[in-house]
Amino acid sequence: MSTFSRIGVFDSGLGGLTVLNAICAANKGLSIVYFGDTARVPYGSRTPETIIRYAEQDVRFLLSKGVEAIVVACGTVSAIALEELRKEFSIPIIGVIEPACDAAAKVTKSKHICVIGTQATVHSHAYSDYINRQYPDMTVSGIGCPLFVPLIENGFREDDPITKMTVERYLSPIRNTDIDTLILGCTHYPFLSGIIHETLPDVRLIDIGVALSEVVGRTLTLPHNISDNFVEYCFSDRETGFKRFDAEHLKDLPNGPIKSINIESF
Amino acid sequence: MSTFSRIGVFDSGLGGLTVLNAICAANKGLSIVYFGDTARVPYGSRTPETIIRYAEQDVRFLLSKGVEAIVVACGTVSAIALEELRKEFSIPIIGVIEPACDAAAKVTKSKHICVIGTQATVHSHAYSDYINRQYPDMTVSGIGCPLFVPLIENGFREDDPITKMTVERYLSPIRNTDIDTLILGCTHYPFLSGIIHETLPDVRLIDIGVALSEVVGRTLTLPHNISDNFVEYCFSDRETGFKRFDAEHLKDLPNGPIKSINIESF
Repeated sequence: MSTFSRIGVFDSGLGGLTVLNAICAANKGLSIVYFGDTARVPYGSRTPETIIRYAEQDVRFLLSKGVEAIVVACGTVSAIALEELRKEFSIPIIGVIEPACDAAAKVTKSKHICVIGTQATVHSHAYSDYINRQYPDMTVSGIGCPLFVPLIENGFREDDPITKMTVERYLSPIRNTDIDTLILGCTHYPFLSGIIHETLPDVRLIDIGVALSEVVGRTLTLPHNISDNFVEYCFSDRETGFKRFDAEHLKDLPNGPIKSINIESF
Repeated sequence: MSTFSRIGVFDSGLGGLTVLNAICAANKGLSIVYFGDTARVPYGSRTPETIIRYAEQDVRFLLSKGVEAIVVACGTVSAIALEELRKEFSIPIIGVIEPACDAAAKVTKSKHICVIGTQATVHSHAYSDYINRQYPDMTVSGIGCPLFVPLIENGFREDDPITKMTVERYLSPIRNTDIDTLILGCTHYPFLSGIIHETLPDVRLIDIGVALSEVVGRTLTLPHNISDNFVEYCFSDRETGFKRFDAEHLKDLPNGPIKSINIESF
């Protein structure tokens, strides 16, 4: 079994950094190229054709950097484009759907799981297709929350009354149902996990970054002789300004060079 | 003086349709190619370099359709890229800054104007540079309202409590100042003009689409023998779903073919 020491991680923008953070916290000795497509964020309101085209370019860019495996740190791309990417490219490609569903299936007692995500993710039925196949005794609901990413990307914190009211709007329909497990199906959403927990105190939250980082450690044989991670941060437009965000979800990110690339040329 | 009968109008998405509507209401006999860059919307949170690159591609696409003049129906592109576009392309290119400022200067009594727009627009100082040059006795303030476009694009209506609270957040600092004229410096904002007027009842609102449509009629010699407009609607991803919106700001849009194009190839 070969050792994977150089992996690529990509997302449309800021959200994938929560996944990268979880990967870095759980694994050592990795050389990681992170790509955030900040010139074309958000993906979640676009059509499947466009999302697939963008994802293919993102993967080609990471391949040009010599990565040996790829983590799709984007809920929308994982839901829409994973099969196409796996058909087209021969290296291992890990998405968030399967780890998130497996983690949710493990903890739910009521066997009723809800997924929140972008419009594209919820419309794709990717989560329910996987759960229906793997766990046919479970029920899956889905809620699109299209304003969460713009709120986060524009610096609205989770204690802001506008954020609170938006969370209440999207999630109050879940209250007093038998849903006991909620998959945060977009890598931005951990930034709102505090207020989501306040809104739904009896519901277990599944952070897809944490679920996925465990799979990375299990799926890829990582080198044991290096104790640090090295990350190169690449963006198609501005770097995301992630340093201004609450450190909790990003505190394990190592420093590293920040580069600007033209994604349309890939 | 030549007659311009075929013009191009472009925006990052839905907003430019409010400009197109105003142009169609005020002018007849035009053949218009509209382009909405829905694969890359929003522009307003990107860097000037990226906005200029996108705008150049947008213009090249419209030129390929044989247009004789171009209306930049996007506040962000007008603020960031207009000079570069005029240097690079030889046909007339009309933006929203100058018409909007002229319209505001005409009605302000306090000589204190405020511009609201995307972050990129406000940071560009394009409005204040023009007003300082043309109307040196006037003062210009600016407020970035980055959540307005996502609210509109995601179907939040202006009577929604979340919309109201966001408008109040951004605009309450203007209340009880000597600002008497507010330029809605983004072509999306007419969709919020009702609630903005409620929030600031004593302030005159300048709709940049209306201001610009008058300039189009004055600048371009239009044919007189045709009484209808013909519009071809082109989008880089999904069409904007504009038909689900309040008809008031879009009621003069003629029906026309809707086409899908790959903007990255221009």
